[in-house]
Amino acid sequence: MKIDMSYGSGGKQTGNLINDIFLKHFDNKTLNKLEDAAVLNVSGNIAYTTDSFVVTPLFFRGGDIGKLAICGTVNDLSMMGAVPKYLTAGFIIEEGAEIETIDTIAQSMAQAAMEAGVKIVAGDTKVIEGKGGIYINTSGIGEIIKPGISISNCHEGDVIILSGYLGEHHAAILSSRMGIENSIASDCAPLSSIVKSLIDENINVRCMRDVTRGGLATVLNEAAEHSGCAIEICEEDIPVSKEVQGFCDILGLDPLYMANEGKMIAVVPVQEADKALGIIRDNKYGKNAAVIGRMMGGKGVILKTRLQGTRSIDVLYGEGLPRIC
Amino acid sequence: MKIDMSYGSGGKQTGNLINDIFLKHFDNKTLNKLEDAAVLNVSGNIAYTTDSFVVTPLFFRGGDIGKLAICGTVNDLSMMGAVPKYLTAGFIIEEGAEIETIDTIAQSMAQAAMEAGVKIVAGDTKVIEGKGGIYINTSGIGEIIKPGISISNCHEGDVIILSGYLGEHHAAILSSRMGIENSIASDCAPLSSIVKSLIDENINVRCMRDVTRGGLATVLNEAAEHSGCAIEICEEDIPVSKEVQGFCDILGLDPLYMANEGKMIAVVPVQEADKALGIIRDNKYGKNAAVIGRMMGGKGVILKTRLQGTRSIDVLYGEGLPRIC
Repeated sequence: MKIDMSYGSGGKQTGNLINDIFLKHFDNKTLNKLEDAAVLNVSGNIAYTTDSFVVTPLFFRGGDIGKLAICGTVNDLSMMGAVPKYLTAGFIIEEGAEIETIDTIAQSMAQAAMEAGVKIVAGDTKVIEGKGGIYINTSGIGEIIKPGISISNCHEGDVIILSGYLGEHHAAILSSRMGIENSIASDCAPLSSIVKSLIDENINVRCMRDVTRGGLATVLNEAAEHSGCAIEICEEDIPVSKEVQGFCDILGLDPLYMANEGKMIAVVPVQEADKALGIIRDNKYGKNAAVIGRMMGGKGVILKTRLQGTRSIDVLYGEGLPRIC
Repeated sequence: MKIDMSYGSGGKQTGNLINDIFLKHFDNKTLNKLEDAAVLNVSGNIAYTTDSFVVTPLFFRGGDIGKLAICGTVNDLSMMGAVPKYLTAGFIIEEGAEIETIDTIAQSMAQAAMEAGVKIVAGDTKVIEGKGGIYINTSGIGEIIKPGISISNCHEGDVIILSGYLGEHHAAILSSRMGIENSIASDCAPLSSIVKSLIDENINVRCMRDVTRGGLATVLNEAAEHSGCAIEICEEDIPVSKEVQGFCDILGLDPLYMANEGKMIAVVPVQEADKALGIIRDNKYGKNAAVIGRMMGGKGVILKTRLQGTRSIDVLYGEGLPRIC
């Protein structure tokens, strides 16, 4: 069965899609009421964010657009020191999409939501002309358990930890598009448990950012600029798997500019760096974490190369890999 | 200047789009920080919702996709007895869209947000291949000032008030697509001030719904089903402007199934109906409000026709008008 325009009418067919797929997988008391808006009880400081997902292909090694749509928003909330609680899901579906595909994606969303401990409490479906594409927006609310974590909160002397190998999501998507056979899987994962552990263990985290579109280079530049610092990172300390490094060498890609969907940086005071690194490495999504650099006086991002040279690292210019997330 | 794929990369061009357009128009302290998520202080019961907007054409008499994206989510929050406070905006932009067009739409969003008293505190931009189309998702948070308003809260004997003329948005969009010249404008408007007045005046509102996709017929069926009641409405009491009625007569359209973007029903106890009607009529977006029917024992929605017959009214089947919102 394929989606046609009637599924976006707001009438009978839209209702069927909601009942047969979304309520089946996202089942929870709030969503099931089908009110105009979900009613929730929250208190104190919340984190609130949104992200749209347009990745192609919809399914790739290590995940799919559904898992990505949950993890992406869960991670954005987590980076603010929040425990992700509630998500919304807005689907824009192109005519011709298979209902079975939507069902598989919704199931994947439900699984990722369960792992991250979030509920999908509101949704929307629209249908547009096209060739069977599927786009998903998620927004999310989290309860902030450690206030003050911010991209502008890094201090000179702080240490930058990266939670694992760079470039896996990017390489997996590109491999899939180019029909290259390898075993590289997207790192798509919820980072909420790493963040919760850091906070529970009283690490004085200054700043966290998930390393997505634009890559590590862009994230580091944002941290340097907003915090009024420079950043120095060491090439030999940056974790990249052998397989991804080989992939990059062949295609001339730079892992610093490649997108990830389950990696983060945490900037912490130097005296807490070892403890923080240990906590991250204890998490299944942080096993290959490493200290990659530090905040310094000055401006910009400097890479110390393997050959002991230095290179200035700017944000991503140009296209990157289109529709990576 | 046109959008190309580099504007979706998360790098330099994405940053330019954010700075030059979104921060310029949506300017507020929270958004300007450009964190992964907005940090907000809220407490108590909140309403939380999402909606995507895919309307075509992007600009039409009475509004555009930007105004629609704000009003649609503001109205969904309002219908739960909430004061809309914060919105997120997720843009999915097709390659080839004019940056000037995006600027105009963002300006329109800012104006509508100001009127409704909401702030856009988080956003996201993605670029996909295509022909210059623009899709917008908004999610929203509101503070509930009157709890318990619900689609399942209507009681036998309650009165149904419709806030004004039906079918204007639908007729405006269809006129634009068909190149029909008339003066019908979309009713696109924020309903938050009507709702706030009803609550401030202590009307014991049972249920509110904005009458959008699927039309009045679909909304009434949902209220009847969820509340375990029947609904009787009178054809001659349903407000339709002469111009829209003429448009419907020519094209064979039924106002009951036409989409609106600035109309709502309010279900209230019979003894409060006159007062509630007066309050709604005092609002500039409710001047043509009318009592259109009542909740009864039984099931389904019954229309008493002008000729004193009765007709059973079902939800919208089939396509309606694709991409109406």
